[in-house]
Amino acid sequence: MLKFADRMDGMRASDIREILKVTAQPDVISFAGGLPAPELFPVEDIRTAFNAVMDEQGRTALQYGETEGWYHLREQIADRIGKKNGIKAKAENILVTAGSQQGLDFCGKLFLNPGDVVLMESPSYLGAINAFNAYQPNFVEVPTDGDGLIMEELDRILATTENVKLIYVIPDFQNPSGRTWPMERRKQFMEIINKYEIPVVEDNPYGELRFKGEAMPALKSMDTKGLVMYFSTFSKILTPGFRLAWICASPEIMEKLSLITQAAVLQTSTLNMMVVSKYLDMFDVDEHIEAIRPIYKHRCELMINTMRETFPEEVKFTDPDGGLFTWVEMPEYVNTRDLALKALEQKVAFVPGSGFFPNGGNEHCMRLNYSNSTDEKLVDGVRRLAGVIKEALK
Amino acid sequence: MLKFADRMDGMRASDIREILKVTAQPDVISFAGGLPAPELFPVEDIRTAFNAVMDEQGRTALQYGETEGWYHLREQIADRIGKKNGIKAKAENILVTAGSQQGLDFCGKLFLNPGDVVLMESPSYLGAINAFNAYQPNFVEVPTDGDGLIMEELDRILATTENVKLIYVIPDFQNPSGRTWPMERRKQFMEIINKYEIPVVEDNPYGELRFKGEAMPALKSMDTKGLVMYFSTFSKILTPGFRLAWICASPEIMEKLSLITQAAVLQTSTLNMMVVSKYLDMFDVDEHIEAIRPIYKHRCELMINTMRETFPEEVKFTDPDGGLFTWVEMPEYVNTRDLALKALEQKVAFVPGSGFFPNGGNEHCMRLNYSNSTDEKLVDGVRRLAGVIKEALK
Repeated sequence: MLKFADRMDGMRASDIREILKVTAQPDVISFAGGLPAPELFPVEDIRTAFNAVMDEQGRTALQYGETEGWYHLREQIADRIGKKNGIKAKAENILVTAGSQQGLDFCGKLFLNPGDVVLMESPSYLGAINAFNAYQPNFVEVPTDGDGLIMEELDRILATTENVKLIYVIPDFQNPSGRTWPMERRKQFMEIINKYEIPVVEDNPYGELRFKGEAMPALKSMDTKGLVMYFSTFSKILTPGFRLAWICASPEIMEKLSLITQAAVLQTSTLNMMVVSKYLDMFDVDEHIEAIRPIYKHRCELMINTMRETFPEEVKFTDPDGGLFTWVEMPEYVNTRDLALKALEQKVAFVPGSGFFPNGGNEHCMRLNYSNSTDEKLVDGVRRLAGVIKEALK
Repeated sequence: MLKFADRMDGMRASDIREILKVTAQPDVISFAGGLPAPELFPVEDIRTAFNAVMDEQGRTALQYGETEGWYHLREQIADRIGKKNGIKAKAENILVTAGSQQGLDFCGKLFLNPGDVVLMESPSYLGAINAFNAYQPNFVEVPTDGDGLIMEELDRILATTENVKLIYVIPDFQNPSGRTWPMERRKQFMEIINKYEIPVVEDNPYGELRFKGEAMPALKSMDTKGLVMYFSTFSKILTPGFRLAWICASPEIMEKLSLITQAAVLQTSTLNMMVVSKYLDMFDVDEHIEAIRPIYKHRCELMINTMRETFPEEVKFTDPDGGLFTWVEMPEYVNTRDLALKALEQKVAFVPGSGFFPNGGNEHCMRLNYSNSTDEKLVDGVRRLAGVIKEALK
């Protein structure tokens, strides 16, 4: 009988990853994962970049490299978030991670003692809940409305809660809700954060996938005290298969994250960093993103419109300006875990909402992804789901 | 003033990674890292494998995949460690990790509460010390001799020490000592482990790089109780730039490691796993390893012979049968941290020995790597080092 560490008691299988196993079956229409559309991956351009790296620096790409990442890629990232997100950063502020999930794990390791408090939007990304869970925190959920986090609630909670060590937020096209914070709330947020001086993870995987309205500046662009760790990733604007993301942070935090990286993984894949770096030099990633946006816009609208036509009136859902997800709320007596099983019988999959609340509950919600389905599947899947929902509302 | 978690107090920069930064200068002869020889990397074969993956399954390779790894690669690994190391395993026993360092971090997370005891050989791999350190254990060092871990000492320590939660060993061409456990000790080890039922990490990155004597069976091949987690990697037999390694473990441990993987990184790079899998299908990696072995043998012998010719008689060093390292012991009054600074003035680098002892001390030792230097640099570097040592022994 093996003895595991205490932290393992709080760790449970991610609903998403478990459901993804089922949805690997080709006849299941899956709104469950957060998968980008593979038909949009620039396979040939990536091949060209890979072959150029092999021609020019193959042996360097296949060798060990620096802890913090391939320097030129760090420069490219710093330059890009300067132009796109208004963030003043140098290469030295960038840590390349093997996906943003790894960055979340590192931030849990850096800031959380058992029993410390993490604040998150209610609901929030279940992968972040899982990552922090390994460090045995208490989660306090901050209420949200249609414009995201409610700042008065955040202020109230910070004023009355001890041992808050980390705040995790997704201001743009939030996962799972699809909601975006307006400008005024961003300013309020930074005022509150500066008052209490609590470190913040600003997770922005989807910000560039905006298909309506104006881009918002990152919280990090307004960060005067070095409190915000800005997370983004190549998974959604390029491809997830590289497992390449980054954290932009102050020198003080970078130094600690570098120690954590050394101890946890040594470094991210030199090869993948150099191939993506070369891709960014050789091709116009903005052009690629421009090609993705209208397709996701179309898929989003098709899903929303089909839901409007087919879902019972009591069912509410968000209408996002970008990103990959819409969030659906049923009448409170509906249990979406049961519903998910019934939906799987009809060969359609989604993620039940409860997993997105750090402290559970809210069994009447669910998250739907629209980026990874054809038009036909979107319409067919939503219709099947409408049938299952109507059964449950009877 | 940011507040970090308590665990950060015990985390310090790895000597190796810090020294590698200095040794990036081209005029420094470095015996410091554990870098394989890049001139031996099969760049063209890897390019061929990559292009085949892009032709056949490019979009799959660039997408998210399963937590535990690309299934065919897990089959290939299970098959390979069956043939090479006598380990009976299925794909389901294999977790692909982004380098063995990640596996060490995961095992720390899985088994260690603060204050728990980890047993390690004295000396042992400093990357493992760093990885476990994040989980705030106490380290107990088990004495070693020319044949590796002394089993009577292990038995004595286990009989008298509470809260031993993990044992970390490198039975083949140990890092840093270059020593290998003989058969008899392996049997004794498993008897002792079975008696106390403590989980074991058997780290075997170098086992296939044997250039003298007969291959030894893995501890895992004698593991009847599912206590041993067998670690190996593609970093030393193929290339490190992929960051691909694996853990072979019992179903009970695999289930927990899978939870940890989900929370910490989601998964390892699909692309890298598929490219290495394709490489293994298209090419004969054994042939590649056969090409590495005589070169490392030659470099090892050249270093050892040059040390014999030039080092003062009081200086002792190991003569390994494989792997990448030799371990040098000076008279006890010599401090190799000071020596390392003097050596850097002479443009030659090594890793001081103290970092390989979890509880420090042993300032008179150092580790030398021979795999990553040309003949000329090996001879020239050892001679420069001999000069610095002679100064210190005066």
